[in-house]
Amino acid sequence: MGKGTETRERIIARAAEIFNVDGYAGTAISDIMRATGLEKGGIYRHFSSKDALALAAFDYAAGQVRQRVAASLAGSPTAVATLLGFVEVFRGYAHNPPVVGGCPILNTAIESDDTNPALARRAAAVIDEWRSLIRTTVVQGIARGEIRSEIDGDALALLMIATLEGAVMLARLLRDAAPLEQAANHLCNHIEQSVRAC
Amino acid sequence: MGKGTETRERIIARAAEIFNVDGYAGTAISDIMRATGLEKGGIYRHFSSKDALALAAFDYAAGQVRQRVAASLAGSPTAVATLLGFVEVFRGYAHNPPVVGGCPILNTAIESDDTNPALARRAAAVIDEWRSLIRTTVVQGIARGEIRSEIDGDALALLMIATLEGAVMLARLLRDAAPLEQAANHLCNHIEQSVRAC
Repeated sequence: MGKGTETRERIIARAAEIFNVDGYAGTAISDIMRATGLEKGGIYRHFSSKDALALAAFDYAAGQVRQRVAASLAGSPTAVATLLGFVEVFRGYAHNPPVVGGCPILNTAIESDDTNPALARRAAAVIDEWRSLIRTTVVQGIARGEIRSEIDGDALALLMIATLEGAVMLARLLRDAAPLEQAANHLCNHIEQSVRAC
Repeated sequence: MGKGTETRERIIARAAEIFNVDGYAGTAISDIMRATGLEKGGIYRHFSSKDALALAAFDYAAGQVRQRVAASLAGSPTAVATLLGFVEVFRGYAHNPPVVGGCPILNTAIESDDTNPALARRAAAVIDEWRSLIRTTVVQGIARGEIRSEIDGDALALLMIATLEGAVMLARLLRDAAPLEQAANHLCNHIEQSVRAC
């Protein structure tokens, strides 16, 4: 990796943390300068604007989340194991978020939904990936007789994502892992008792 | 209401909407000036700082949410009806939020958890009110034989709040009421099938 690429990657990784803690509107380029030890010109050499850096930082943060999901789902032997694996990704977010500051998909969604269409589209694309993953898992699980034939994969996906992301919000606000434990336990029970084929 | 009080109330109501859409960090006093038609001095006559206005605006927004909850729960004949009434408060948020821009408790929680302890405490206090309401409802419901004796009211409260607030986030990001419908339907089924005494 050349020195320019290395600097670029370092700016992105630090900016992703700062944006995730302080928000996009709450972060000034001077905050990124302080965190990276670079002059303003050193940052603008790599990014044409704060908005361009924000998009690159979101993509990096989403990549960190994607790695967590992939690691938790790797080698899942059944559709039910895949669904349970998705739930487990979020259980540890209270103590060990994928990026400092919590879930970057949640934080970006809340800040950008009314104000920044480019970021909102990026966050929505990650939600769509998760819906597609869960929908496909349910279709395969039904075909293999592991999941009840009446289960609507997309409805299950929306329920799982809403419950887990809402619990991340509560866990961070209250500085208490209990909401994430409750949400994850409830979804695991629901999957075992109402989604898994009898 | 004197003219000064009327102006103060008008600033608060407009600021609550602007903060809820654009965030606290994303709002400048010039945005409030434009929305109210007041000069800077006309705003600072009533509020010592942007932070003081933000707290007053949050209290106003939380009051709008409280009115929704109170209206939905008024006259609930049973503990189960109270729990279902709480769920129904949120079902309409996709099309008709209590304040323009979505749920002010959710938006404030996400923005303030790492950055603004005074606002974060205000948001956490509303969550605590809801937990207390649901916990008390469950205790009374168990005493009256309406709710299963093994139900943990606080665990149910955390699950309900997480699921509903996460669904508000998704509904606003995706501009689709489906996540709220799925979340509300799931919680209503859960309450009917696993919380209500047989």
